[in-house]
Amino acid sequence: MAIITFMSDFGMSDHYVSAVKAKILSINPGLTIIDISHDIEVFNIAHAAYVCKAVFRDFPKGTVHLISVNSHGEKKNRYLAAKIEDHFFIIPDIGILSLICEDEPGMIAELFTTAGKHTSFPAKNILAKAAAMLASGSGMNDVGDFTKDYLRKTDRKFRATKRQISGNVIRVDHYGNLITNIEEEVFNILLKDRPFLVQFGREKADKINCSYNELDDGDCFVIFNNLGVLEIGINKGNASKLLGLKYDSPVSIVFDDPVN
Amino acid sequence: MAIITFMSDFGMSDHYVSAVKAKILSINPGLTIIDISHDIEVFNIAHAAYVCKAVFRDFPKGTVHLISVNSHGEKKNRYLAAKIEDHFFIIPDIGILSLICEDEPGMIAELFTTAGKHTSFPAKNILAKAAAMLASGSGMNDVGDFTKDYLRKTDRKFRATKRQISGNVIRVDHYGNLITNIEEEVFNILLKDRPFLVQFGREKADKINCSYNELDDGDCFVIFNNLGVLEIGINKGNASKLLGLKYDSPVSIVFDDPVN
Amino acid sequence: MAIITFMSDFGMSDHYVSAVKAKILSINPGLTIIDISHDIEVFNIAHAAYVCKAVFRDFPKGTVHLISVNSHGEKKNRYLAAKIEDHFFIIPDIGILSLICEDEPGMIAELFTTAGKHTSFPAKNILAKAAAMLASGSGMNDVGDFTKDYLRKTDRKFRATKRQISGNVIRVDHYGNLITNIEEEVFNILLKDRPFLVQFGREKADKINCSYNELDDGDCFVIFNNLGVLEIGINKGNASKLLGLKYDSPVSIVFDDPVN
Repeated sequence: MAIITFMSDFGMSDHYVSAVKAKILSINPGLTIIDISHDIEVFNIAHAAYVCKAVFRDFPKGTVHLISVNSHGEKKNRYLAAKIEDHFFIIPDIGILSLICEDEPGMIAELFTTAGKHTSFPAKNILAKAAAMLASGSGMNDVGDFTKDYLRKTDRKFRATKRQISGNVIRVDHYGNLITNIEEEVFNILLKDRPFLVQFGREKADKINCSYNELDDGDCFVIFNNLGVLEIGINKGNASKLLGLKYDSPVSIVFDDPVN
Repeated sequence: MAIITFMSDFGMSDHYVSAVKAKILSINPGLTIIDISHDIEVFNIAHAAYVCKAVFRDFPKGTVHLISVNSHGEKKNRYLAAKIEDHFFIIPDIGILSLICEDEPGMIAELFTTAGKHTSFPAKNILAKAAAMLASGSGMNDVGDFTKDYLRKTDRKFRATKRQISGNVIRVDHYGNLITNIEEEVFNILLKDRPFLVQFGREKADKINCSYNELDDGDCFVIFNNLGVLEIGINKGNASKLLGLKYDSPVSIVFDDPVN
Repeated sequence: MAIITFMSDFGMSDHYVSAVKAKILSINPGLTIIDISHDIEVFNIAHAAYVCKAVFRDFPKGTVHLISVNSHGEKKNRYLAAKIEDHFFIIPDIGILSLICEDEPGMIAELFTTAGKHTSFPAKNILAKAAAMLASGSGMNDVGDFTKDYLRKTDRKFRATKRQISGNVIRVDHYGNLITNIEEEVFNILLKDRPFLVQFGREKADKINCSYNELDDGDCFVIFNNLGVLEIGINKGNASKLLGLKYDSPVSIVFDDPVN
């Protein structure tokens, strides 16, 4: 049986998280449910998409990812099952899908809503059931009608020229580290052995570090992290607070005059 | 084997939650433990009872619900097992039982306390053992002595006349939504197709919405929620902060002059 | 199969916790993972060691304890497996081992780091794999090379004379209770039926209570707790805030003039 992962903006002080789990286990008591996070910032689709994108491929293929963030977010109240790279996603149709995956999903189904369109708790009454069914071996056509229609949102992208990569902070993590949308792959293509400067706030760095801790405590590090994107932090410190940078702050890499 | 659910006011920064789980798994490694919440406000019995009541029926019958909130709350240090609607509850005798269920529980047993009455960690030394035994198939007489005696507390109730229903906020949830004790069933009986006004703080509403999101962002909604009680919120906003209402704030529904 | 426990300073708002679990379950989907805490204060080794020491023996022998706190904390980037009292620990070599266990561990292995020494996510790329292998039946020699070398740190200890025990607060728990390093066993040896005074901040107590709740709400209690150490609290109150005491504050027990 497949694993179900569960992410929400429900927090942990109400019954919402456990009601969804109860529903899943009532349908199939043998299912394994792994919490991704219930501390997603309330209504924050970008936060949910970032965390989901960062981790879903670490789970075995066939895993069902249930995401309930801002579940009441769009007036039309559509709920989707989607298949991306052999993972299943059960989500409200509020744009997360397009932020997780730039390509078109392999298959999308609009979930049946036998519970009535106007349930005040769709995560329990619609999403949990579909997730439990898929994880128990049902097909996507058992949980909804195939469709091509889903809400597309556009992620903020870095811009790159021969001379410069301009990006943004896309996440301030639990440590205060600043994770950007500047990709290692693009940096490597543009570098051509030239000197460069990473610019963020009032700071500059002229090299990329290999690890968090080759520097002394309190020093600033700039690395390409495990996700393959530029991350700025302060060893044993909170970079966001100490550098005054936050979500959406600009970060750029400027290369020396173009070669040739 | 039955599921054990676990709710406490322990928080997650100490060893308390995992010590209880370790005890349960030491008795029976095959048991499934589902966290309800460990963010119950410290010593807050009303919060615990609200969350428990909102979710316990979603679990399969036979589920064992371990609740350790304010475990040292009463001087007599009694701990109970109780059976309500084919669910088992393992709790300190501090009044939660009467707040979860208005009817008399089907069976109550006072737990054996072989660990000594004065343990400083009853959730681990008394409650965990009883929960693991019940979930593994033991009977209530294996974990304690049957009794009729338990602490009764009275929940704050709404008052209803032909002209008005007067209630209170019983929970401000993670989103800042205001959940009241005004029941949809009572409203429907009293309504008789009359116009009405829902009054809360300085605001008034003259209709009940069907869902959170039929309104625009920032608008106030008034719905009967999944639990069948009146809930007031602000679409994409924090109603508690924006309306200045909190736990226990009065909410009323006033009907037009009585018919006939 | 053995249980894996998991403790970190990752918080729950990023993908870090679930990425480690995904790795473990990809290696062996049948493993049971129990969260100890992911609310360990960032970089705080003493907090991690306190919680680990307080709970690890409650789990069945053979349990694998994965600890990722301050994982990038030391420049040499070593990661260890250790066997203590038939429990396994998978940890970065930053001194936690010596704080959990005063005796030399039975066996220590330095983990293989095939993922490259400079991974920015060692909990996922190094620790998770070793934990999954040990919990699935591999030997310590399958996950690393045996070694005697590990970082030793010294815990703050109480000092005891015939006349006085001087200790410190080693943890302020979720309730604000003050947990000290003064051991019940030492107190009992030195007591010799003499009167004594427990001194903390501006307060004094001349007896040890048997339980949290033999006093009235708001009264101060002094007990030897479930861990066998002196704990000071206020019934239904936050002792740390109300008494102005915190981590490292001095606490002492002064006995009457020595006998004979």
